[in-house]
Amino acid sequence: MDKILLGHGSGGKLSHELISNLFMHHFSNNILLVQGDAALLPGINEQLAFTTDSFVVDPVFFPGGDIGKLAVAGTVNDLAVSGAEPLYLSASFIIEEGLPVSDLERIVVSMTEEARKAGIQIVTGDTKVVNRGKCDKVFINTSGIGRVKPQHAGIVKGNGIYPGDKVIINGTLGDHGIAVLAARESLHFETTVHSDCASLNQLISGLLGSFSEIRFMRDATRGGLATVLCETTMHNDFGIRLDEAALPVKEAVVGACEIFGYDPLYVANEGKVVIIASAAEAPQIIKKMKENPLGTDSAIIGEVVSDHPGKVVLETSIGGSRIVDMLAGEQLPRIC
Amino acid sequence: MDKILLGHGSGGKLSHELISNLFMHHFSNNILLVQGDAALLPGINEQLAFTTDSFVVDPVFFPGGDIGKLAVAGTVNDLAVSGAEPLYLSASFIIEEGLPVSDLERIVVSMTEEARKAGIQIVTGDTKVVNRGKCDKVFINTSGIGRVKPQHAGIVKGNGIYPGDKVIINGTLGDHGIAVLAARESLHFETTVHSDCASLNQLISGLLGSFSEIRFMRDATRGGLATVLCETTMHNDFGIRLDEAALPVKEAVVGACEIFGYDPLYVANEGKVVIIASAAEAPQIIKKMKENPLGTDSAIIGEVVSDHPGKVVLETSIGGSRIVDMLAGEQLPRIC
Repeated sequence: MDKILLGHGSGGKLSHELISNLFMHHFSNNILLVQGDAALLPGINEQLAFTTDSFVVDPVFFPGGDIGKLAVAGTVNDLAVSGAEPLYLSASFIIEEGLPVSDLERIVVSMTEEARKAGIQIVTGDTKVVNRGKCDKVFINTSGIGRVKPQHAGIVKGNGIYPGDKVIINGTLGDHGIAVLAARESLHFETTVHSDCASLNQLISGLLGSFSEIRFMRDATRGGLATVLCETTMHNDFGIRLDEAALPVKEAVVGACEIFGYDPLYVANEGKVVIIASAAEAPQIIKKMKENPLGTDSAIIGEVVSDHPGKVVLETSIGGSRIVDMLAGEQLPRIC
Repeated sequence: MDKILLGHGSGGKLSHELISNLFMHHFSNNILLVQGDAALLPGINEQLAFTTDSFVVDPVFFPGGDIGKLAVAGTVNDLAVSGAEPLYLSASFIIEEGLPVSDLERIVVSMTEEARKAGIQIVTGDTKVVNRGKCDKVFINTSGIGRVKPQHAGIVKGNGIYPGDKVIINGTLGDHGIAVLAARESLHFETTVHSDCASLNQLISGLLGSFSEIRFMRDATRGGLATVLCETTMHNDFGIRLDEAALPVKEAVVGACEIFGYDPLYVANEGKVVIIASAAEAPQIIKKMKENPLGTDSAIIGEVVSDHPGKVVLETSIGGSRIVDMLAGEQLPRIC
């Protein structure tokens, strides 16, 4: 069988074969092997974090990753930035009839590899197949469960942010969006831009274990850094001042953005966490982040201010300033 | 705004409007309102059940339900048949550009209503929009978390099934599949068949609270009753003998199956639980199930036997018998 058939989604023999030969084979773990209608997990005394994300990225393979890696890392990151230790993931596939089984296997192997790196288990799943032309190759939903230590339960709300706190990012902006755009449009830049797609939970847990004044974290995915910061200030009595000169952006990404009229502030990332932390701890946080391969280009990029509550203002490299607003329309559809 | 635009999936302003005006408005609860990247839930000391399901049913509205009701009830049922008390659901939408907002709202209202009936909360979500023609109206993933009491932790594995145990079902077979088929093909039967789509958690918890010899439960969805029973006997040292005369099937469903060449044993249900319980408790279980509106047509339909291990055999009404095998191909695609 080299292509996915409607019967692979029937719940019957073909479904069983696909589950055994592909999903169970690769995701293999004792919880999954029970094959119940639900996975049974050990109890969690501490608070639970629960999140979900559907991935529809086009194309499914791109430099630096694929929809499978993205689906695991994306949900791991949603848990990690909420102050949780990611533990378990579900994986649900909507597959277009005719998808080469080899493509699906490549995606499943990639998920397995990323799950191993992140130290989480894929414990339950589902497969649906729709007629040709009724979806686009494959969509993947991952939902995730994590454990939140009591001292980190406030991070998801960001209640402790005050003027003077620093805004930190763990590296360059816009790599994912530009990598996917280039792959979709078959563009060839002089330097290939790779997606930054990665699980950040180990970087983040290292920080949460060492520092006590991390106020808030958010991964800057759809809508980019700008949207995250706008959401953070919105309805709050503080603003954020961003320093354009401090923003890390790869030259190739700057170039691509100039050609297509995109602003790197709004381009999606898939391995970037925005951290708000006290000014006192920020330099040490940067130092520690740079020890991790996923944080070598970490930088303090701005500051929480009382001047313009509810607003994000960019201090430009040439000495001006402009308000950074939330994305109004759609810059790049199907980026994640 | 009367149609869904790509911008509704951008993570920017339009996404925020859709989330506030539609999802938060209807699903409203204190956990969801935090709007973090993950929902924070109270800890659960007992074992956790975790499940996921993506729904791609075509058409999205059908007699007796819609994709929203189905998405809530389906995941609630996967938790309930695993012996869990369903607590929290996630809801993730993949929407085709151009879907009328009124259709989406109708679906969201239906999810809200079914969640209320089932006594669960929708605590986290996600929205993606894909270009017109890249999916079919709307696909919904729901994942769910439940709590499993220690005395029910064996149900998901079905370890305690023995010859002599009875096979029970809570009502008529094939209603969902035939209702969706009729709606899809715009068929008009003399009697409209309504989907049995319903959350069974209260019916099931009533049984688990009253009886101690329920060995196993499974909801008979894709692949129908036949597939569930084949999965249950497969690789086991017992078989199941089904009594055709005892199978509850509506006359209109029998008629539709005859016309289209379907076997009600294989047609999908969305509100039917198959229970295996001791012969001693089975009559009392039936009595209790009949007190619930979702169990009025409950019946003992077969028995666990040692005669033909690993096999399901149907004793036909005319005195013959035939082996019931797992669905080989695809009978009705996109039924759930």
